[in-house]
Amino acid sequence: MNISIDREALAKSVQDVMKAVSTRTTIPILTGIKLTATASGVTLTGSDSDISIESFIPLEKEGKLLVDVKRPGSIVLQARFFSEIVKKLPQQTVEIETEDNFLTIIRSGHSEFRLNGLNADEYPRLPQIEEENVFQIPADLLKTVIRQTVFAVSTSETRPILTGVNWKVEHGELVCTATDSHRLAMRKVKIESENEVSYNVVIPGKSLNELSKILDDGNHPVDIVMTANQVLFKAEHLLFFSRLLDGNYPETARLIPTESKTTMIVNAKEFLQAIDRASLLAREGRNNVVKLTTLPGGMLEISSISPEIGKVTEQLQTESLEGEELNISFSAKYMMDALRALDGTDIQISFTGAMRPFLLRPLHTDSMLQLILPVRTY
Amino acid sequence: MNISIDREALAKSVQDVMKAVSTRTTIPILTGIKLTATASGVTLTGSDSDISIESFIPLEKEGKLLVDVKRPGSIVLQARFFSEIVKKLPQQTVEIETEDNFLTIIRSGHSEFRLNGLNADEYPRLPQIEEENVFQIPADLLKTVIRQTVFAVSTSETRPILTGVNWKVEHGELVCTATDSHRLAMRKVKIESENEVSYNVVIPGKSLNELSKILDDGNHPVDIVMTANQVLFKAEHLLFFSRLLDGNYPETARLIPTESKTTMIVNAKEFLQAIDRASLLAREGRNNVVKLTTLPGGMLEISSISPEIGKVTEQLQTESLEGEELNISFSAKYMMDALRALDGTDIQISFTGAMRPFLLRPLHTDSMLQLILPVRTY
Repeated sequence: MNISIDREALAKSVQDVMKAVSTRTTIPILTGIKLTATASGVTLTGSDSDISIESFIPLEKEGKLLVDVKRPGSIVLQARFFSEIVKKLPQQTVEIETEDNFLTIIRSGHSEFRLNGLNADEYPRLPQIEEENVFQIPADLLKTVIRQTVFAVSTSETRPILTGVNWKVEHGELVCTATDSHRLAMRKVKIESENEVSYNVVIPGKSLNELSKILDDGNHPVDIVMTANQVLFKAEHLLFFSRLLDGNYPETARLIPTESKTTMIVNAKEFLQAIDRASLLAREGRNNVVKLTTLPGGMLEISSISPEIGKVTEQLQTESLEGEELNISFSAKYMMDALRALDGTDIQISFTGAMRPFLLRPLHTDSMLQLILPVRTY
Repeated sequence: MNISIDREALAKSVQDVMKAVSTRTTIPILTGIKLTATASGVTLTGSDSDISIESFIPLEKEGKLLVDVKRPGSIVLQARFFSEIVKKLPQQTVEIETEDNFLTIIRSGHSEFRLNGLNADEYPRLPQIEEENVFQIPADLLKTVIRQTVFAVSTSETRPILTGVNWKVEHGELVCTATDSHRLAMRKVKIESENEVSYNVVIPGKSLNELSKILDDGNHPVDIVMTANQVLFKAEHLLFFSRLLDGNYPETARLIPTESKTTMIVNAKEFLQAIDRASLLAREGRNNVVKLTTLPGGMLEISSISPEIGKVTEQLQTESLEGEELNISFSAKYMMDALRALDGTDIQISFTGAMRPFLLRPLHTDSMLQLILPVRTY
């Protein structure tokens, strides 16, 4: 391999594929980044065998020459060193040339690095995915959907299936659900696809977090391809593969209450800030629990007590408050996570008693829902 | 105590005195911040018994009312909770009122915190310092002097005296010196004082770092008062006390070579970047050592080898290169620290052979000097 490549384009691609490279791996070659130069450009690959990312740098983009391939070929270079080197090279152009025994020379201006590379033939092959049934979501919407659900996955490996987000595709709609069995986040979006497709898979939360980091904020479409054990996200010059979680995701529809006894509409930002303050002293405690009590005149009181430290009381005026009086305790962290996920000024919260799960949703749409289980305090 | 106080002014003062509060202290009351309200304003105090910081909030500043003292008094509040609370209170004004048993009520808008306070009488007294011989340095210059020396203090407690910076005042000049016995940083400044004063003290590096963080960037004068075991820095509404280190600081003048065999002038930024790249592969190794070799035509070569990873070679054109040929190895970290401390475009480096300490200094001034000991590589 012998190429001359634009440093910025290379640095961007290296940064993207690095998201999949783990320093803790049982497969030594996966601590490297694979570079492959062909007549059409240079492909970089990073993988930790759960997630694989492929970034392509074409010969030119928008009239700017990015790559000159003098001799095609491929090599694997230590990801950590290679990424640091690319970041710090002095000139706009970088030359990368392989010699015998996978020795690789990286030159830029008066800098020369001679790195011991690895045989690219020993790098694992990426999954081969048949692109039969593709559906599309704009990149910015995909990032929003991920942000609004992925925080609710379980961080415990007790039930591994709950560390992923359930993606269900049916009737031209994608329903994403995450739960750690104490709270649940759900978001629906319309999708575009040529054929009527239907899937029911579980994508690891970690994969979705990494995907979210490398997607641009624009609204260009991302192609999504599902297979039995892999999902592939395709953006411009970028392939993101993730394995799927094995097992059946629990049926969550029955957890969601259909009736309510107390309903309130609050300003999301004011409510979030009041919860944040009310939990300041409780963060020491085991559960970070705050208590919410309805008061006359549409007022709420949010409070917490930490015997050694002190007591907080917050009062808040609701936009509307209907139904039974209520006195309920819940995790301040879960409430704040849910409020941050619900974009929008005013939100509706529906309770069915102090011991039943309650629901948060934006006004005027059923495309999003957050559910939280209360905490028993007696 | 019963006061009404501007939240922003309070938050700024809390943030300043927090710099002295340690969570790991053997004196429980020092995990708190002391508030004292008098007819003239409110004083906040934080201390870890090595460093003490006192911040004063006057009744008004630039025509803006900051404090209304309804009942003078004092209280100690848990620093960590109090600082979080002040940051997050909803309104511009905060009321703080103490009741029986040191219970303290903090109110702002619809928020109310009831905190268990501590008896302010049990808070240690700050050192009483006679302000006889004061000298002055503008705040921004003081911060620069600290930045240019404090990084070179020792981080090891083997010789505790070396964890401080030696401040010597004599003939209207302050000379600051720090060394960890592998490198040395020295900076001189003229000072202003009414009397001829002379001191020779050692200030803990940690104290200077914290002081630097809370000083404003302006050029208003900071009064400095020295005693046998304390130093006091006085800025507007701010007192910063630090204990001094016991013991005699080593005589460093004799370490500094007075002649040189090889002298070069290099562009500091280019040289720093070349050293940074040359050390990229060496950071794994024990010493992070790079080798510098003079080449014909005023060129330098900077290189390092890490057998398993690879080799880097950097070439750099000097502005001037005079004297004997040279082949010397040194810590890349020490070199980069020194180059960052030396403000200025071009710097002069003087060597007296591969085994002798070498000197870096800016051109056209002897007010600053960095010394580095080379590393034997044979």
